[in-house]
Amino acid sequence: MSGVVVPINKGGSRESVSQDKSVTAHSVQTLVDLVKADMEKVNQLILSKTGSEVTMIPQVANHLIDSGGKRLRPMLTIAAAQMSGYKGSHHITLAASVEFMHTATLLHDDVVDNSDMRRGKLAARLVWGNEASVLVGDFLLGQAFRMMVDTGSMGALDVLSHAATIIAEGEVMQLSTAKNLETTEDEYLAVIRSKTAALFGAACEVGPIIAEREPAIISAFRSYGANLGIAFQLVDDALDFGGTSAVLGKNVGDDLREGKVTLPILLAYRRGTDDERKFWKQAIEDGNSDDAALKRAMELLVNHNALADTIARAVHYGKIARDALAPLPAGKHKDALLEVIDFCIERGL
Amino acid sequence: MSGVVVPINKGGSRESVSQDKSVTAHSVQTLVDLVKADMEKVNQLILSKTGSEVTMIPQVANHLIDSGGKRLRPMLTIAAAQMSGYKGSHHITLAASVEFMHTATLLHDDVVDNSDMRRGKLAARLVWGNEASVLVGDFLLGQAFRMMVDTGSMGALDVLSHAATIIAEGEVMQLSTAKNLETTEDEYLAVIRSKTAALFGAACEVGPIIAEREPAIISAFRSYGANLGIAFQLVDDALDFGGTSAVLGKNVGDDLREGKVTLPILLAYRRGTDDERKFWKQAIEDGNSDDAALKRAMELLVNHNALADTIARAVHYGKIARDALAPLPAGKHKDALLEVIDFCIERGL
Repeated sequence: MSGVVVPINKGGSRESVSQDKSVTAHSVQTLVDLVKADMEKVNQLILSKTGSEVTMIPQVANHLIDSGGKRLRPMLTIAAAQMSGYKGSHHITLAASVEFMHTATLLHDDVVDNSDMRRGKLAARLVWGNEASVLVGDFLLGQAFRMMVDTGSMGALDVLSHAATIIAEGEVMQLSTAKNLETTEDEYLAVIRSKTAALFGAACEVGPIIAEREPAIISAFRSYGANLGIAFQLVDDALDFGGTSAVLGKNVGDDLREGKVTLPILLAYRRGTDDERKFWKQAIEDGNSDDAALKRAMELLVNHNALADTIARAVHYGKIARDALAPLPAGKHKDALLEVIDFCIERGL
Repeated sequence: MSGVVVPINKGGSRESVSQDKSVTAHSVQTLVDLVKADMEKVNQLILSKTGSEVTMIPQVANHLIDSGGKRLRPMLTIAAAQMSGYKGSHHITLAASVEFMHTATLLHDDVVDNSDMRRGKLAARLVWGNEASVLVGDFLLGQAFRMMVDTGSMGALDVLSHAATIIAEGEVMQLSTAKNLETTEDEYLAVIRSKTAALFGAACEVGPIIAEREPAIISAFRSYGANLGIAFQLVDDALDFGGTSAVLGKNVGDDLREGKVTLPILLAYRRGTDDERKFWKQAIEDGNSDDAALKRAMELLVNHNALADTIARAVHYGKIARDALAPLPAGKHKDALLEVIDFCIERGL
């Protein structure tokens, strides 16, 4: 079904969501360049810490870790530490911890969601079984904590262990909202604040913490990260339906197939007619979602501006992230972090 | 099938495994009495830390936590701290952490093993789904780390985070040994050292660590705990077939039904005839284990002294645990810890 284009039939939605229309497309390249040397060390550490005599552990872990994730979260840790004037090496360790926490979450998510694919590869659970995904996730979480302990930073341990419980709490919340079309936008936001934004926030916050910066700077980084995380997740939700351009392609409609309600669906449902709401109930609550259902869903999402408005919400949080960085001095690092916001949002356009 | 007794038809095995034949049965009562006041605080803390606005979390967590586990591990933490002369309150926090780590492992184990029952109740995964078991396990693990962080003890964090990875490593190891009848006793021991003994050892070790005791005392407690843990698990394995008395009763034969090889099975397999080995392969590797298979298995386990000798191995580790406590002064606490060893082993007789 790749290549089927459902045109946006309500004009103007692009204009309403992006202020950067006239600007060249943004990328994470500035950030990548700034953290390159440190990220090589992070990657080496990640590799060494997936090692185990129990050979299934590195197999499962590396299946996911090597599969081309952007490593955005550890890059944020490195950048935040550099920007905070940190001169030691604990930011390397914490960046690897953050990536392990993220990878553990992905492994457990695949089991929870019964996912078949992850980053374009077969989900680990289909290759090695749910058991291995659960347990290797636990191993990586354990290694993440060991690495944090290695840094000796109680502040970082506090922030990251707190994030671990918040993430799990968000995932459990999602279990109860997953198939519930009456979920409010606030309730949905609470889920993504927990399951996505908490780790983004913590990833940024530990940089100034190990640099022993003042509370206002620590708060600035946490706020930047958390709001970037919300924007990132909202754009991801829109991208699951091909973004505002609503292009049907590979892996499009996974959330619908898994019966997972996201903001685009919630908006289209609220704005829909009785007949349309009946369609959503069948697709989501009864799990009745074939290709025809996906096509209908895409039409409704576009008709009700649900994808464009999801991106508009993301833009809102992106702006908060931008303003959060105000206390930080101008420079390459600040530019890079600001560009990450634009990049995250433009992915969805 | 309750009440069917398969008699032990090789005499003398009881004599060979217990030195305490003439002594009154041991219990954990001495230990329970010593730690009673502190354990009330531990239980309150456990209750407060399962709290969450996400109501499914306390429901799932308390399903397991309220289900009458002995709380042996946190009692060991309290006893070890008291014996080490610790005067603060961090032992309460660490004891709750240890119990949360254990509970998280049980929740994940049930998913990994597809278990139906846990502590005589329906496994949480059957009531709330595998998803909830995985995620509430993650939540409890996160809370465990937060509590450790609350104590500010880097030493305790180091020991317990290390234990977390070792436990997960042991569980993954078990995936590959689970249905493999060629597993050696050494390989099996490596599994239970990781999946059971590591947490017992850590639970004991953190007591003298927060009391800032000397390395020899810390090692003594770790050695006591780890060897007690091995003995405990071996007896558990024998108990799964009704112990040396091999009495078929409720929940007997779960390991066989789940195709999980344990030391009794490995011993009977090694000592068996070709015909018997064929039986074990069918039961374990092909998952062909009905009531008739269980009856046959029990007969073979008894004929080859496999249950009695598993307890004999447990006695061996119990002795190491006993000698490990040599550097500790005589007194009620030492008596209580020694009695725990005897109690653990006598369960299997």
